[in-house]
Parts: sequence; C-alpha cells; structure tokens
Amino acid sequence: MTVYDFPVGPYPTRVRIAIAEKKLQAQIQFKMVDLYKGEHKTPEFVAQKNYSGTLPVLELHDGTLIAECTAITQYLDTLNGAPSLTGATPLQQGIIHMMSKRAEIELLDAISVYFHHGTPGLGPSVELYQNQEWGFRQRDKAIRGMHYFDTVLQRQPFIAGAEFSMADITVIGGLVFAAIVKLEIPAECRALLAWYERMKQRESVITQPAFSS
Amino acid sequence: MTVYDFPVGPYPTRVRIAIAEKKLQAQIQFKMVDLYKGEHKTPEFVAQKNYSGTLPVLELHDGTLIAECTAITQYLDTLNGAPSLTGATPLQQGIIHMMSKRAEIELLDAISVYFHHGTPGLGPSVELYQNQEWGFRQRDKAIRGMHYFDTVLQRQPFIAGAEFSMADITVIGGLVFAAIVKLEIPAECRALLAWYERMKQRESVITQPAFSS
Ligand SMILES: N[C@@H](CCC(=O)N[C@@H](CS)C(=O)NCC(=O)O)C(=O)O
Ligand SMILES: N[C@@H](CCC(=O)N[C@@H](CS)C(=O)NCC(=O)O)C(=O)O
Repeated sequence: MTVYDFPVGPYPTRVRIAIAEKKLQAQIQFKMVDLYKGEHKTPEFVAQKNYSGTLPVLELHDGTLIAECTAITQYLDTLNGAPSLTGATPLQQGIIHMMSKRAEIELLDAISVYFHHGTPGLGPSVELYQNQEWGFRQRDKAIRGMHYFDTVLQRQPFIAGAEFSMADITVIGGLVFAAIVKLEIPAECRALLAWYERMKQRESVITQPAFSS
Repeated sequence: MTVYDFPVGPYPTRVRIAIAEKKLQAQIQFKMVDLYKGEHKTPEFVAQKNYSGTLPVLELHDGTLIAECTAITQYLDTLNGAPSLTGATPLQQGIIHMMSKRAEIELLDAISVYFHHGTPGLGPSVELYQNQEWGFRQRDKAIRGMHYFDTVLQRQPFIAGAEFSMADITVIGGLVFAAIVKLEIPAECRALLAWYERMKQRESVITQPAFSS
C-alpha cells in the first residue's frame, strides 16, 4: 500500500501514528507530495487521488483510494479483525468517533483554518484566498478546545475513556499543528499537558518526523 | 434511547433516516430542542449534552451521550451485529467513511456555514457573529460539490459504490439543507438529480419531516 504523505504534516502524522500502532510499517510505502509547492492542488492530484486536495491518501494495491484520516484509520484498524483504535463494541465505536470528530472540529481543523487564513500558511502561491478574521476566530476556538479536552482528561486517562484510541491520535494531530503555528497550550491545562507528555512516551508517537528536530 | 432533535434539521434528518433504515423507531424517543430559540447554545446544553452545541445528540439509558451524526450512525448501525450503513468489511468501512466525510466537507457542512454566515441563519439572537464573505465562499464550494457528486453517480448507483450507505444519507442531508437555503441543484447534474429521486422513494427518507409540506 502507498500513503501520499507530507512527513511533518499534522494530518499525515495521524495516519503514520495509526500505522505504527498497528505495526503495518513494512507493508506501506510513503510517497511525498510537497504541500509548499502546491502538489496537492494540481488538477491531476485532485482528479486522480483526492477531490478535496488534501493529504494523506492511502492507495491500495488495486488502485483503490481512501482519503480522510478517519476513513484511513478505520480501514487499517479493522484489517486484522482486531480493532484497537476505533473500538471493538458499538458503544466504543460511537464514543471514539464522536471524540475524534470533536477533536477535529474544536481543535485540529480549527488550527488548520487558522494556519491557512490567519498566517501566511503554505505561502502566496498556494493560499489563493485568505479570510484573516475567520482564521483568528478559529484560533480562539482552538484555545477553547484545549480547555475542553483538559476537562475531559481531568476525569479519564484518554480522550475517549479508559483506553488509547483514534481520538487521542486526533488530539495529538491538533497539538502537533498548534506547535507549528506557535499556539501554546495554556499552562493551566495541566491534565492536557500531562496527557501529552504520556503520549510522547509512546513509540508510535515520538518516532514521527513531526517530533524530531 | 433519546435523540435530542430538531425535526426538519438536515443533520438530525441524517440520524432519523439511519434510525428508520435500522427499524429502531420504537426504541427511540425524540426530544425537541428549539434551534431558533438557541436552546442548543445554552450553558446547560453545552455543558451537559454536547460541547459543540449542535444537534442531534443520542442519549442512552445509562445517560451516555453520543453526539455527531457519523458517530451516532456508527453506533446504531453496529448495535445488531449486522452493519448495513457503515460497511461490513474494512474496505467498505474505509470507503463509506471517506465518502460520508467528503459529503460533509464539500456539501453539507459548506451549506451549513453558508446558512449561518451568508444568510440570516437562525436569526440575530442566535447568530452572534457572521462572516458573510466566508459564507458565500462555502456556498460556491457546495455547488462545486454537487458537480463532484454528480460525476461519482455517473459511474456508480450510490455515493460509496454498489450499495446504499451512510454516505448517501450524508448527501441527502446536504440536499435537504440546500433546499432550505434555496440553493438549486444545477440542471446539468442529471445523475445527482436522478439519484435524489430514487432516494426519495425510500421509506426511510420520504417519511422525514424535512420532506413533508
Ligand atoms: N479532512 C482531511 C484534512 C487533511 C488536511 O487538511 N491535510 C493537510 C496536510 S497536514 C493538507 O493537505 N493541507 C493542504 C491544504 O489544505 O491546502 C483529513 O482528515 O485527512
Ligand atoms: N458535526 C455535527 C453538525 C451538527 C449540526 O450542525 N446540526 C445543526 C442542526 S441541523 C445545528 O445544531 N446547528 C446549530 C448551530 O450550529 O448553531 C454533526 O454531524 O452532528
């Protein structure tokens, strides 16, 4: 299988963590698509790989394409018949999908909009339209999101409950993106900060390009 | 189980269709939350039911809450051990989650942003901040999304392939919202229009409050 990838990108990092958690590295080849050159917005990439023009995208041996981190994680996690990231019971699946989606809406996607609209983003040749006011709004939403996830982690060890899951990976993606745009986790978010330290002790996490430098 | 609901709302309609497809109506009680009165943004609702302040939310007998249409659908679909909306194989799950997410990003969520920002939305007492330019951009994106889903339906009978799935429901949600904001499906999107006519022949769809009147 091939993953169209940008190694330090927060979204591709989500899928790379999932791959490492599932020990699937040996079965996957990574192909770099240069976001700063806009290679993800070319007519070919959009027509042939992912209509939304984003990374990551997983390509199977027969050419089938799966875009969207959540969908790729769902696929890879259930491949071996023993899901460990997306839930084994209906209830776990529901809670994990809710919390992962909430982490997108309230944190990761919000920071992504801030990056593309409230900062120079990928540069003027890629960012053809920017709405700065909207970008700043999303930045403020993401800070509120950090406080929300802090309260979640005050009452349970992981984002979706008692166990590590896709929802933790999504919040990690959010905090990876926060570092890129220099949004600090507020010092009073102690449960979130402590959880993040624990996450960085996982081999699947700390070995990612986003954490080296 | 209880669903916090706004009967004609496009997102609640997604979950109502899923409930009807799974024949779970008898097990579910619907509780109306009045969006036009901002009942979904009260401190109580946000703190106790759904941090994101949106509908629908599913509440289980023990008080467990599941927000987000995708998460609720995933839960309800797998409850009986025979998923028919979210995929039975890893590949189907991956494709359905991708296409449903894409339908959110490129159609339903885009129209929702247009509604809240480019039109009066829920009215001045609920829409405390509007960014009209962003709203109009999202409207244009949704129209492009209709053309995209039209090309998808030119080569296959349903949004995620050979069978009806959660992804079809998400596109239906998008077109329900399009009607509310008076965005017409372009006449040249013939495959999309024909598919929508077929969808409206499903009992789970046509019996929804969004389709009466
Ligand atoms: N909803 C997508 C979002 C992916 C995404 O935004 N990826 C970033 C890379 S970190 C991207 O491609 N950004 C480029 C752009 O939006 O121009 C997912 O979950 O996979
Ligand atoms: N991501 C959410 C979106 C739900 C949503 O936006 N629901 C609408 C009702 S149709 C809502 O609550 N809108 C109120 C608002 O955003 O103020 C989901 O998939 O459930």
